[in-house]
Parts: sequence; C-alpha cells; structure tokens
Amino acid sequence: MSKTTQGITVKKSENISEWYVQVLQKAELIEYTDVSGCIIYRPRLYAMWEEIKKWFDEEIKKLGVENAYFPLFIPKRLLEKEAEHVQGFAPEVAWVMRGGRSELKEEIAVRPTSETVIYDAYAKWIQSHRDLPIKINQWVNVVRWEFKHPTPLIRGREFLWQEGHTAFATKKEAEEEVQIILELYRRVFEELLAVPVIKGIKAPSEKFAGADYSTSVETLTPSGKAVQAATSHHLGQNFAKAFEIEYQDESGKKANPYQNSWGISTRSLGAMILYHSDDKGLVVPPRVAPLHAVVIPITFDKNKNKVLREAKKITKTLEEEGVKVLLDDRDHYTPGWKFNEWELKGACIRIELGPKDLEKEQAIAVRRDTGKKTPVKLNELSKKIPKMLDKMQKDLLSSAKEWLDSQSVEAKSWTEFQKAAKEKKLIWAQFCTKDACASSIHEESGAKSLNLPYSAKKPKGNCIKCKNKSKAVGIFAKSY
Amino acid sequence: MSKTTQGITVKKSENISEWYVQVLQKAELIEYTDVSGCIIYRPRLYAMWEEIKKWFDEEIKKLGVENAYFPLFIPKRLLEKEAEHVQGFAPEVAWVMRGGRSELKEEIAVRPTSETVIYDAYAKWIQSHRDLPIKINQWVNVVRWEFKHPTPLIRGREFLWQEGHTAFATKKEAEEEVQIILELYRRVFEELLAVPVIKGIKAPSEKFAGADYSTSVETLTPSGKAVQAATSHHLGQNFAKAFEIEYQDESGKKANPYQNSWGISTRSLGAMILYHSDDKGLVVPPRVAPLHAVVIPITFDKNKNKVLREAKKITKTLEEEGVKVLLDDRDHYTPGWKFNEWELKGACIRIELGPKDLEKEQAIAVRRDTGKKTPVKLNELSKKIPKMLDKMQKDLLSSAKEWLDSQSVEAKSWTEFQKAAKEKKLIWAQFCTKDACASSIHEESGAKSLNLPYSAKKPKGNCIKCKNKSKAVGIFAKSY
Repeated sequence: MSKTTQGITVKKSENISEWYVQVLQKAELIEYTDVSGCIIYRPRLYAMWEEIKKWFDEEIKKLGVENAYFPLFIPKRLLEKEAEHVQGFAPEVAWVMRGGRSELKEEIAVRPTSETVIYDAYAKWIQSHRDLPIKINQWVNVVRWEFKHPTPLIRGREFLWQEGHTAFATKKEAEEEVQIILELYRRVFEELLAVPVIKGIKAPSEKFAGADYSTSVETLTPSGKAVQAATSHHLGQNFAKAFEIEYQDESGKKANPYQNSWGISTRSLGAMILYHSDDKGLVVPPRVAPLHAVVIPITFDKNKNKVLREAKKITKTLEEEGVKVLLDDRDHYTPGWKFNEWELKGACIRIELGPKDLEKEQAIAVRRDTGKKTPVKLNELSKKIPKMLDKMQKDLLSSAKEWLDSQSVEAKSWTEFQKAAKEKKLIWAQFCTKDACASSIHEESGAKSLNLPYSAKKPKGNCIKCKNKSKAVGIFAKSY
Repeated sequence: MSKTTQGITVKKSENISEWYVQVLQKAELIEYTDVSGCIIYRPRLYAMWEEIKKWFDEEIKKLGVENAYFPLFIPKRLLEKEAEHVQGFAPEVAWVMRGGRSELKEEIAVRPTSETVIYDAYAKWIQSHRDLPIKINQWVNVVRWEFKHPTPLIRGREFLWQEGHTAFATKKEAEEEVQIILELYRRVFEELLAVPVIKGIKAPSEKFAGADYSTSVETLTPSGKAVQAATSHHLGQNFAKAFEIEYQDESGKKANPYQNSWGISTRSLGAMILYHSDDKGLVVPPRVAPLHAVVIPITFDKNKNKVLREAKKITKTLEEEGVKVLLDDRDHYTPGWKFNEWELKGACIRIELGPKDLEKEQAIAVRRDTGKKTPVKLNELSKKIPKMLDKMQKDLLSSAKEWLDSQSVEAKSWTEFQKAAKEKKLIWAQFCTKDACASSIHEESGAKSLNLPYSAKKPKGNCIKCKNKSKAVGIFAKSY
C-alpha cells in the first residue's frame, strides 16, 4: 500500500465532512472509483465488516436462519408486483438494457433489495403449514442509483448488507422475530461498534415501502446528522398477497403467511468511524478492529538486536493470546513516524519497547483513544493487553453515550424544536405521527422523523408542530 | 420448503442432463428464476459453498492474502484498457444504461471479472517496492451474459466466486504463487468435493484474456463433458503496463510488478453433483455436506416414547461430536417415505432406530453412497459415525478416480482420437499446442483442448492432428 506520510489536515470540529473523507482515505479504508457513489472497501475496512458478519451470522443461525443466494437481476414484472414497493424503489433502480452486443427485450433491474425475487420463490416453496416458518438470509451487494451527493459508506450507489426474509404462520411469531432481530442490531452497534442507538418504530411516513410497519435503530453522529442504522420490518401479509404466497393451514384452509424482512449494511461502519475517530485519524473499537496492537521497537545501534529479539517475543506471545498484533520493525522509518502512522490507521494499542524499558523489564502501552501511557511488565503483557482492549471497548461506548446524551434535547415548543434543529441536536418531541405533519416538520426545520423510541414515555398533550393530539414521542434530527 | 414426494424420474445413465436438473431441483438445491441463466442458490446448496469458502479463505489468509470489496460496476473506459482482455470479455458483458429514470451518459459494465477495476486501484497503491507484494481477494458475484444454453451452476449468467489479485516485485515470486494456489484448488476438489482433477497449463488458445499463461485444474464429469474447475493465471506485466502500475525499485528505478489472478467458482459444485449423485438423488461428500446424518425413529404405538427418547439422545450425542445431524421425528410421514426423502436430499448417513434395535442396544447406520447397512452399538455411535463419514469421503474420491481413469484414453492416431471423442472420453494426445490446430481439433472432433497436464510425460513424436512436432501432451474432451 502506498505510504501516506501526511496526517489529517482538517479538524473534526471544524469541517467534519472533509475530515471524514480524509480519515477514510488516509487510513486506507476506502478508495474512490470513476463511478460516482461506488467505492472500494479496502482490506482494513472490509475486515471490520467481516467481524460484523461473523457475529451476526452466528446469532441468526442460532435462530434457525439459513443463508442462501438470490440473483442480482430482477425482472421488471416482479419488481412491479407490490404497488407501494415499486413506487418506493423505482426512482433509484439501475437498469441493465444490453447483454453483450444485443439490446434486451425488457430491461432488468439490478436488485435494490430482494423482497420481490425472494417472495416469488416463496410462493413456490410455501405450500403447507409444515413449510413454515421459513427463515432465509443473504449477504450481498445491492444497488440504489441515488442522485444525492454521495457520502462514502453512508450514502452511495452500491453497498453491502445482509437481508433476512422470513415467513410465519402467525402474526405473533413474526412480530416477536421483528424485536429479536432489532435487539441483535442494537447489540451489533453497542457491543461491537460501540455506537449507542435508539430502538423504536418508524412513523408511517418513514416505513419501508410495502411494510405494515418498520422498526429501526437510530443514532445521531458527531456530524449532527442522524443515520438510520438498521431496520427490521414487519410486512404483514402485503407481499404474501401480492405474490400469492398461500399455504394450507392445519384445518385445510388457504392462508397467507406473515412476513418480515430485516437488514444491516456497511453504513454501520460509517457511523462507527464518525463516532470514534479523531484529529489524528482512525479509532476503532477492539471487537471489530483489524489491528489490536502494534509493537514498535525503539532501537539504537548498540542494543538493537536485544530489543528486536524481545519485540518479536512479545508479538508472538500476544498473538498466541488471540490479540491481532503486528511487529513494525521497518528500518527505514523512525519510531515517531510509525507512531503517527499507526495513530492514523487506528491500531488500538501501541506498544513501545526501548532499551530503557528493557532494563526495567517493561514496555509502554499507549491507548489509541485516550493517548494514555501505561508501563506494563513484559511478563504481564499477555494478561494486561486483552484487559486494556476490553476496557477501551467499554470506554468508547460510555463516552459515545455521554456525547449522545449531551446532544439530546426535549423540545417543548416549536420554537425550541427549531432552535435545536439548527444546533443539530437529537430532538425528542410530542408527535401526532401523521405523514403531512412529518413533512412540514422536515421542510420547516430540516429535521426528519427518525423513529418513535420504545424507551420514550407515553404521549402527553399536543403534537409539537400541528398541535393535534400527540400520538407518540418521536425523535427527530437532520439526517444523511 | 415444499415437500417433493416424487423422486428422480430419469436415470443418470439414460439422460444425464435431465437427471442433473431433476437432482438440483428435487433435492432443493436450486430454483430457476424468470431471468434465463440466473438461478437461486437454495440454503442446502449455499451451505456447501460456505464450506468451500471457509476452507479456502483460511488457507489464503495463511498466505497473507486479505479480503476486500471492489465495485460491481466498471466504467467502459477501464474495461477497454487491456486490449486482449476487452476482446475476450466484451461479447458477454451486461451493461447498465439507465439509473432511476435517467439515461446514463456512458453505459457501465457489470463486472464479468475485476482485473480492470482492481488494477486501476493498484496503480495508485503501488508506488514503492515496499508496497509489494500486494495480495487481495474478494468473494463476489460476477455476471457473464452468455448466449449458450445455460446449465445450472456449470454455465449461467451470474455466478459466485472468489477472485484473487496479487502483484509481486519478481516474476519468480509470482510464478511460485500460481502453483501454490493451483495446489489449493486441487485440494478443494479432491479433499473437499471428492472430485479428481488434473493440473496443467492451458494451451495458448485457451489462456485467460490478457494473461501470459494460465494454469487450471480440469476434470471430465460423468456427462462426458469436461469442466474447467478453477484457474490460476500469471499475468506477467501485461496489465501492469496497460494500467501503468509502476513502482520504484530498491535502486530507485521505475519497474512494473508481475501479477497473478486466480479464481474458483460455484461451478465446482456442479461438477461435484454430477460426479457423486445417483438415480435416487443427491450424494454429497461429508466435508461439504449440509447434513451428515439423519436419525429416523421407527415407532409403533407401544414403545413410541422409548424409541423417541433414545433417538433424541443419539442426536444430541452426535451433535456434540460435531456431526451435522437432524432428528426426523415428523409424525405424518412413514419411515419409508423419510428414507426416500433423505436419499433424494443427500444426507450422508441414515440412522434407523426401531424397537428391535433398541432391544439389541444398537442402531442401523446406512451409508448414502453405497447403501450398506451397518448395525452400530448405541454407545459406539459417537465414535463410529465420524469414522464412517471419513471413510465415505475417501471412498467417494477413490471411486471417482477409478471412473476418471476408466474414461481416460491415450490416442495414438487421429482416428483413435475421433473415436474417443465420440465416446466422450478424456483423451491424452501429442499436441503442437498451436491455436490453429486447437481449433481444427475442436471443429472436427468436438473435443476441446483442456490443459497440458504437469503429470504428463515429455512430448514425443508428432502432433495428433497437424503432424508437426509435438510440443506437449495435452488432454482433450467435449466440454460445457
């Protein structure tokens, strides 16, 4: 990889958009391509996605979900079957119109999401109540030909995700699963990515095209813009009816199953990077970090071999302990240069080892997020480094939570709401949940309805905007 | 899943094409879609691909290869940069020409393979000899808009694969890697899929578009058609020059790296299914099988509970032993019906447990491939079933090898060659390796040049077809 000697040139607090793009590029996480909105996920970024995949995949397999693969290409006819769904997605579908040198008779959609192609198959596979439940997931790329300005990972034309598609005999089972999956998503964000999220149900205006209702985990990022982090939809029988998914129930009668779909995408990594990284570069929570520790020997001619020997030993010991560790023994860079490079690239802990440390039988461990230096006895490294990583994981979430709390305000009047929106806060407010009101809130304040948090108190009084009776407490913010 | 009560209605020996499609559909491995050449990989098929992925991914990570993700969409300009490459792929590229409701200014290719988009990035990333080697892999879907009649898994318009792309400072390192990867591919086929393959170098007419040379593992399937199972290409400096990938070597001079690309696809699963499956349905080698054992209780009213209790116990014990096992305790099917179903779906071992067996403290283990019944003491199941699976894995490869040997002939004259081609044999013959001769062999006999096996003896005498001096022993067969 090309060596970026230059650090981040913009402060996070001054121009977070430019800072974000610099972190992504200089920490060698992404590369732009000539197709707008399509980026390269470089190995160090992709490794983080692999960690999410591994954890989530194991969890859903415990629930009896099986992986499969459905085609990238969806015939126009299928995409159009569920009326709300096609309306929602048609404006951003990429169409293949030529194969080799021949024009196609009918253009073919590149999947923006796979409900239609999957449910067409479900109509064949679900014949009897014994075929239910069916729980299938796929890890794939999807394409949404957006025209808004792209933001890498957050808004682009191609992204990676998983999409789960399940069907049940009863509404109750389906609705229970919606919540089980939503909780898994919360755990991905809070336990793996150290990003606090708020679980809730989407207001009708924001629900997935074709769903009965959508649930989501939402967060406000340090840019002051919210990110819809992952969604778990209850589709009711809408798609089942549109796609004629019918089965014989136990009494021999025809019935439609109840369906869910749910997804989390690489967008989650964008939120994580926005949260934890700083003016020196990338900060990654240890549970998804491609590199936990980098050992940097500080050598002088005299005792070079001795220091190097010990550095190798440390590296090996940590490796055996399951720490993802690298020995940076490159000769042509100074220790100081390496410190900067690994801060930029987000190694969780830097372990410095010089001749003076060796005399004391210790190394200096420096945490990437706090910069705190801790001398650690060499024979205690294999115990203390994993503990330090655990602590870092927890601390990142705590300070992220603190920050999110500090940005959350309850608006008691429309004036307070508008002020808070200007200040890019996460706004809690009484809400009638009506589509028209959601639009006018967005138009007049720039803040969008995110979800109606499950943790909120019961509605009380009147809607912040239209003054009609409040139906729920909603959260609002500017968003990507 | 819908229950297919009906078995395979065509014999493998009578109409293997129809038999193959029936196995794929009735064993619930694939589903067709409305887009010709695009199939659904159902969970039981996808699980086999996951096993290949897991094994191969671990192996290449040991070699220092990192995973990444490059965009699905490739600008036309990039695809056209390497002259041979674009010639090879242009006839089968799918083109996106519309995004949402707008026509694109320039059509965009859906990746048929990713050399071009990856090497455009390598040109940015490789600046110094210190940036080498670079070893990146991706597990993705690719699209080739073929016009030949599709055969599921073997020839289609979308398939799943991994593509590795590496760059080295020296030709020697690159060429060594070509062989290391080829050996890994051989192991995927022989050790995981129990499919014997022949390693060799491709004749120039068959090499990858843009490569210096290509190596491959090849096999003849029981349909009498050969499948190119996986390829490992040495690209030399061809792409490096076309994409201006240049670095400063240790002496400060500009140099182009030497590159490789290599891939194995879901086609491998097609070859495996053709090899081992039989008139009763699917047979899968245990190492990639989604289901190792199915426990089928044979109950009568009298001692139903006792048998069921023991069946559950067995299942749990085997599970703990790492055996992928299922207890089929469905009430509404007879044991006989279940035997047929699990033969169709390829459970490696059926474990029958009836009241008489219980009296003898045994169960009957029936191997899917041989049908051989073995009584096994209940307290020995956890030892014997894994051993039986190992044996089955080995036996499948041995009999596949035997079959392949029986189909291999050495042709000493053009008449013999033509006869063998008609009989759908794998033909070994002296070969000048020239493009024109390869074409005329293909045209006149229907057999294609597969590769020049590394295991073959030195060339001797004259080319089987053109009578010019032989350059190598080649293998030939009709192919998919």
